[in-house]
Amino acid sequence: MTPSPITPGSPLRTQVSGLPSRLARSALTRHGVVRSTADFHGWFADRLDLARTTAVTGIDFADLVGWGFAPARGDLVHDSGKFFSVQGLAVTTDHGPVAAWSQPIINQPETGVLGILVKEFDGVLHCLMQAKAEPGNAGVLQLSPTVQATRSNYTAVHRGRSVPYLDLFLSARPESVLADVLQSEQGSWFHRKRNRNIVVEAVDDVEVREGFCWLTLGQLHELLAFDNLVNMNSRTVLSCLPFSGPDLVRELGRGTDGFRAALVRSTGSTWGALHTDGEILSWVTDLRSRREVEATLVPLRDVRGWHRSADRIEHETGAFFDIRAVAVSGGDREVQGWTQPIIAPHGLGVVAFLAARFSGVLHVLVNARVEPGYLDFVELAPTVQCTPENYEHLPAGARPPFLDLVLDAPADRIRFDTLLSEEGGRFFLAVNRYLVVEVDPFEAVGPSRYRWMTVDQVVGLLRHSHYVNVQARSLVACLHSLVGGPRADPIATGAVR
Amino acid sequence: MTPSPITPGSPLRTQVSGLPSRLARSALTRHGVVRSTADFHGWFADRLDLARTTAVTGIDFADLVGWGFAPARGDLVHDSGKFFSVQGLAVTTDHGPVAAWSQPIINQPETGVLGILVKEFDGVLHCLMQAKAEPGNAGVLQLSPTVQATRSNYTAVHRGRSVPYLDLFLSARPESVLADVLQSEQGSWFHRKRNRNIVVEAVDDVEVREGFCWLTLGQLHELLAFDNLVNMNSRTVLSCLPFSGPDLVRELGRGTDGFRAALVRSTGSTWGALHTDGEILSWVTDLRSRREVEATLVPLRDVRGWHRSADRIEHETGAFFDIRAVAVSGGDREVQGWTQPIIAPHGLGVVAFLAARFSGVLHVLVNARVEPGYLDFVELAPTVQCTPENYEHLPAGARPPFLDLVLDAPADRIRFDTLLSEEGGRFFLAVNRYLVVEVDPFEAVGPSRYRWMTVDQVVGLLRHSHYVNVQARSLVACLHSLVGGPRADPIATGAVR
Repeated sequence: MTPSPITPGSPLRTQVSGLPSRLARSALTRHGVVRSTADFHGWFADRLDLARTTAVTGIDFADLVGWGFAPARGDLVHDSGKFFSVQGLAVTTDHGPVAAWSQPIINQPETGVLGILVKEFDGVLHCLMQAKAEPGNAGVLQLSPTVQATRSNYTAVHRGRSVPYLDLFLSARPESVLADVLQSEQGSWFHRKRNRNIVVEAVDDVEVREGFCWLTLGQLHELLAFDNLVNMNSRTVLSCLPFSGPDLVRELGRGTDGFRAALVRSTGSTWGALHTDGEILSWVTDLRSRREVEATLVPLRDVRGWHRSADRIEHETGAFFDIRAVAVSGGDREVQGWTQPIIAPHGLGVVAFLAARFSGVLHVLVNARVEPGYLDFVELAPTVQCTPENYEHLPAGARPPFLDLVLDAPADRIRFDTLLSEEGGRFFLAVNRYLVVEVDPFEAVGPSRYRWMTVDQVVGLLRHSHYVNVQARSLVACLHSLVGGPRADPIATGAVR
Repeated sequence: MTPSPITPGSPLRTQVSGLPSRLARSALTRHGVVRSTADFHGWFADRLDLARTTAVTGIDFADLVGWGFAPARGDLVHDSGKFFSVQGLAVTTDHGPVAAWSQPIINQPETGVLGILVKEFDGVLHCLMQAKAEPGNAGVLQLSPTVQATRSNYTAVHRGRSVPYLDLFLSARPESVLADVLQSEQGSWFHRKRNRNIVVEAVDDVEVREGFCWLTLGQLHELLAFDNLVNMNSRTVLSCLPFSGPDLVRELGRGTDGFRAALVRSTGSTWGALHTDGEILSWVTDLRSRREVEATLVPLRDVRGWHRSADRIEHETGAFFDIRAVAVSGGDREVQGWTQPIIAPHGLGVVAFLAARFSGVLHVLVNARVEPGYLDFVELAPTVQCTPENYEHLPAGARPPFLDLVLDAPADRIRFDTLLSEEGGRFFLAVNRYLVVEVDPFEAVGPSRYRWMTVDQVVGLLRHSHYVNVQARSLVACLHSLVGGPRADPIATGAVR
């Protein structure tokens, strides 16, 4: 990115920005200027018809093209040495029910770009979203950011076409960048993977290419209530946009009350929080100082308890996930057909925030979570993040705190409840049930690794790397989607999915 | 740390804090309530007399007690597996004059505690400092934080006495913690080392043990002008305390002008900056996305270009640093005599910020620097940070930018110029000349890896890990030391050193 030239007379700027109020306006605009939501559903159905030519087939590892097991280490690698590889990870920890294990893990040292281009139409910010097929997607097509590209993608290692709109991100002027931060991805499946989450505002006209459409934040918020529609990359980028409680209150008026009012107050700092930001940072520092986990890359052939057969690498208990291989043909991707390894998790995950009102301000209960793939040991995670099936062969005491509180919640305390997918380029049908469940504060007394935080506090940390994990970021996007009021009923809209 | 119990009626708190103005008051108090600065010098001279019983002698590696070269890898390790080890690091990079190298590096996975205890006397915050001997110190004794302890120290691996005051940090109440953050140390000498920088305010009476004394920030600022007096650990902890421009202005009145006024404005956000905080973060994100460096621990015996003799491991050119061994006897440390490996850098380093006024607000020119030991690839560093001798065998084009501008600066543009040491527990006579040199903005047009930032912007990033390197943090402490006005003349005070 090229900064403006600096001279002694260069003007100084303060940090005051109109962005939060512009985001608030977009969030409260449910009927897009460019395309109505009903129109979107028709457009998406048409895209889906086209995408049905995409076929994803499980294959044997021997049938992978350009991929194979490296002789010495047994790692599953691409011939170019690029993209990603499946290696082993040896983990020791003094936290959690299991003290040491080894597992396969994806090593993808490249930093990809997840970018949403935004632009004002009639004074309302719209996001340029893409209907994109990925081999692991539940439902073939999901709504992705404007750009989701690894460096191997855009440096054309697999002889793909150039990535549309990418240059608008890589050469953006500094003042048009609304958010830009490296964020981690699943620390149980990835070794230190991060992607660049970036939002850039377009000033010039933007050609809308086939498969793309402009939507307001309010429209995206409505679409988040649909199962497996807004993809993981969209959710994490959206979470990094700074909302503003005071601006929402101004737009909404003072009449709002109940859960929504408590949520809106939670998106601002003026109403306060149970813990100061400094106390939250000190708590994270304390946990990181303990370095409870050591994770070292090892040869895949040295991983214990996992067995490789012709078409999968699986854990001896059948739990966790398999490494598999797929062939993809047809569709409208950058290249015409390819094969790749993919991670296929077992079972439906549960990802949930417990939320409670303190003095009228909604707080969510975050969990300081250790995952072996994090670069800095601990990140803030949802209250519950697990696949219940994986705990079936462990003692009852190992059952995750608060899981039953979430699963047994009465319907009138469930504020959000949608099936959403993890990244379909690496994960095969990795679906989690994302929930926000409101409780009374005294119902959720837990271990010291949990803290009540406002949405504003979580979003504040999202300006920096290493703090908020990808599942919690998804839930932040889900929480933001509730500021517009009761969610649309996905069935009533006549959705085609 | 134990948080207060949370109930539905727990009060919410906003982030407003009186801390910055209390720090400003302490910074402007040059005559300590507890001890005058003249008295301090006398006290320190007495401590120095006692400490002269400490003898540090270079020894052969074979004479190390409890340390040795591990058979398989050749790493230099302690028998307990604790403390630290000297291993090899293999580095490849596409940034800088050398594309690949290997080198010895200290691996110290533990996170130590660097803590300053503060307490109000007559309404003015004082810091409890310690006159402490370290084997590598220039001048035997330096002024250290209240606590500097590795986990091995305080879990008594070397059968030491318990660390005084440590429990006040480890069991502090959240609301008494004024700063608490993991910060990196030298990325050229340490593999991913971080220490916990923490400041805790004492409410109860504190017994002042032998070797400790209370000093205001203003007194510490005066002492920073003395060569090799305030040690590295003190400087990095001090840098993490949030200063406040508006409060300083209120205390100082509006009459101040010139450099000092520009500096005071720079410690606040109300006057603005050339780049917004968001632009700075985006710039760092962009550089980190490139991942220009890969560093892997390797066996020490596999390091190329370094030779091991009986008493040192040195580079074939004689440049950079040696690994040596020392025996320490006498003194008042936790244990009575020990031996250890130590890094002995060659030559006097230069660490400097160029500073310039833009619209009356001082900015410093930070360099986004890659060092192989950083956990997150890039940290913000001083404008100049190098040992000029190390460049003598490299082509002229490899000479660090701005070095000559610093070395040739006229005396009336030099705002700070003191010899300061790096950590004496790991480094033997590692002395750098720390400078702040004021230039006109057009004198310092450099490559795109440099950005002008206000002091407030740098200090804001110090709330988080991974942003500001240890040399820049030292310079932040030096800059803060100038808010009190023209520095004391070290010679005129009759200092004993």
